[in-house]
Amino acid sequence: MNIHDLIRELREDSGSKIVLLVADGLGGLPLEPGGKTELETARRPHLDRLAQEGTTGLSIPVFPGITPGSGPGHLALFGYEPLHYRIGRGILEALGINFEVGPRDVAVRGNFCTVDAAGRITDRRAGRPTTERCVAMCHKLRTIQVPGVEIFVEPVREHRFVVVFRGDDLGDGVNDTDPQALNVPPLPAKGADAASQRTAEFVNLFVAQAAKVLQDEAPTNQVTLRGFARHPKIASMQDVYGLRAAAIAVYPMYKGLARLVGMDVLDAGSSLSDQIVTLRKVWDKYDFFFLHYKYTDSTGEDGNFPAKVQMIERLDEAVPEIMALKPDVVIVTGDHSTPSKMKSHSWHPVPTLIWAKNARTDAVTEFTESACLRGGLGQFQAMHLMLLAMAHAGRLGKFGA
Amino acid sequence: MNIHDLIRELREDSGSKIVLLVADGLGGLPLEPGGKTELETARRPHLDRLAQEGTTGLSIPVFPGITPGSGPGHLALFGYEPLHYRIGRGILEALGINFEVGPRDVAVRGNFCTVDAAGRITDRRAGRPTTERCVAMCHKLRTIQVPGVEIFVEPVREHRFVVVFRGDDLGDGVNDTDPQALNVPPLPAKGADAASQRTAEFVNLFVAQAAKVLQDEAPTNQVTLRGFARHPKIASMQDVYGLRAAAIAVYPMYKGLARLVGMDVLDAGSSLSDQIVTLRKVWDKYDFFFLHYKYTDSTGEDGNFPAKVQMIERLDEAVPEIMALKPDVVIVTGDHSTPSKMKSHSWHPVPTLIWAKNARTDAVTEFTESACLRGGLGQFQAMHLMLLAMAHAGRLGKFGA
Repeated sequence: MNIHDLIRELREDSGSKIVLLVADGLGGLPLEPGGKTELETARRPHLDRLAQEGTTGLSIPVFPGITPGSGPGHLALFGYEPLHYRIGRGILEALGINFEVGPRDVAVRGNFCTVDAAGRITDRRAGRPTTERCVAMCHKLRTIQVPGVEIFVEPVREHRFVVVFRGDDLGDGVNDTDPQALNVPPLPAKGADAASQRTAEFVNLFVAQAAKVLQDEAPTNQVTLRGFARHPKIASMQDVYGLRAAAIAVYPMYKGLARLVGMDVLDAGSSLSDQIVTLRKVWDKYDFFFLHYKYTDSTGEDGNFPAKVQMIERLDEAVPEIMALKPDVVIVTGDHSTPSKMKSHSWHPVPTLIWAKNARTDAVTEFTESACLRGGLGQFQAMHLMLLAMAHAGRLGKFGA
Repeated sequence: MNIHDLIRELREDSGSKIVLLVADGLGGLPLEPGGKTELETARRPHLDRLAQEGTTGLSIPVFPGITPGSGPGHLALFGYEPLHYRIGRGILEALGINFEVGPRDVAVRGNFCTVDAAGRITDRRAGRPTTERCVAMCHKLRTIQVPGVEIFVEPVREHRFVVVFRGDDLGDGVNDTDPQALNVPPLPAKGADAASQRTAEFVNLFVAQAAKVLQDEAPTNQVTLRGFARHPKIASMQDVYGLRAAAIAVYPMYKGLARLVGMDVLDAGSSLSDQIVTLRKVWDKYDFFFLHYKYTDSTGEDGNFPAKVQMIERLDEAVPEIMALKPDVVIVTGDHSTPSKMKSHSWHPVPTLIWAKNARTDAVTEFTESACLRGGLGQFQAMHLMLLAMAHAGRLGKFGA
């Protein structure tokens, strides 16, 4: 029996409210052995208080040693088996800009790049153009027509855009055309099967025309495409958990992930304080609130240890505003670790706390990697977190007599 | 390969003896954050000594966050995957009163209830009648005849009884007729498929006649039925483990569960000291002894924290009598937690100890939730406990060359 069916069978509506606060890339590493991680370094009186009053542990996003991208990291937190639900980059990007992907669609992430006269890539991000220029270039790409397929082009930001190919029998087994190298031309698209080969042929025609349409637009004079993906079949959180779920996220990717599992994606402004304002405004309308905080990840990716510390402290300061709403269950976690030392996502388990009336308190009084290691939740699979959320919220009945 | 096949392949007969002492609902919660649980509060010198000499941990009955009923809780402890073996309430009740359920039977739990002149339920438990009255009412129900099916009615206690419908092609996909609400009539039975619809029609005829037979018997003037269930296919512990297994339990439900997995259910009297007498008497005849202690659960369900503490202390006092028999392996655990604070079963992991000659001792010297969190078994799935029992008993050979 799968876990979602079990939840559907056991779920109850207790009227309680759950806040899932995801500090992206929360976990870290000390710069030197024996040193402190970013989280251990930060001043975090409010997070520590939640840890003390609740129960803590370390979540393993996929498997020990597996470093997840944002997609699997978040799907696991939402309770979806990340190895089962594989979401292509193109879908995430499309969902993140509110593009309604349908069953005949293959979505792809596009990058503007710079090519020389021989068509070889000299800058994979086209010098990071302004978003205004991205919009203008997308308007040019929209003039492209390829017989047999409908093509949608939507700007994202800077060098990034989304292309959706809509047609019959399109597969998504198509390679990235970005060669991930300089001084070589974009790769031709090839399909891994007949349906994907159909897509690849449309793609190659599109890219050839893009080169013409953009030829006088250096540095944004060519495109690469990656993350070909069809819309996956995935049950909504409403369907699985019976929760009216709201996403309060600033960045498109996380809005897209939330929309994928059927959350209402709310206008969250552009900062954590905007997000809290939104949270307060919609508090009565929803049961479950996914708050996404990006900056713990981006500072980690930048390798900026003190900035990540500062972003954690800023998050800590927002905790009392959340608690003032009197949630029944608060979870603070990350979708993965992003140690500044590594300047990348990592596999290290993620500090996690559950604050709720019926949490079995442990001896942990600090919200840090080392303290969570001694916490009552132990080390657990991230995909089980929603079970714990539902249980602590009084939303799961007894299994069996 | 499933675990039972693995055990069948590796098992050896070492002649050693295993005692599985299940303190029902053992785990608890502090009444206030930072306080002590029932187990932490109790005086438990003998349990502490076993914890000190053995190894400890926290067992997770089904999944994190899942609150098990007694059925799945015990099946997991006996080493049966609780999501795979789903045992209906009717079967448990029937087994618990020594009714031999056969392959043509559908067993159901019945409740006497009180209905008003319009047939609407005014008391779902008929004012909790005496067991004597329950017996008398069951005799009345036995007069009911429904053509095409054989019907057995057996009293359990107070308002509870068992009905078994015996016939050809009877399904158990039938809804509970208890509406779980007052001032509405019992629900009609409906079948989810053709075989179950056959059952449902017999059920509705039975209930209609019950109303007539009991019409002058208020407050026990109607019945509701729930937990329709056929006998599940399940391998015996003898078959899986090669153990001669004995159950020494006082309450019907636990006798029923033990009988389901093929244990010999012994006459265990009505108290823990009776149970110990039985244990001593049959010590030479069996390899495995399941001792069930109910009162840690019932006091928890009552929300009586000090009474649960006292029941733990009483259990502790019985430990030396068990140890005097020189068992090779002693396991103390629960089938789930029942915190007095919640007055119900809960999902919290269950303190567990294994005492055996070859246990790898940990630093734990107390048998409490917080100490077990630091124990050598870590947090583990309850269904793996029997593997550990067999291993510590020298009853599992090496896997692979």
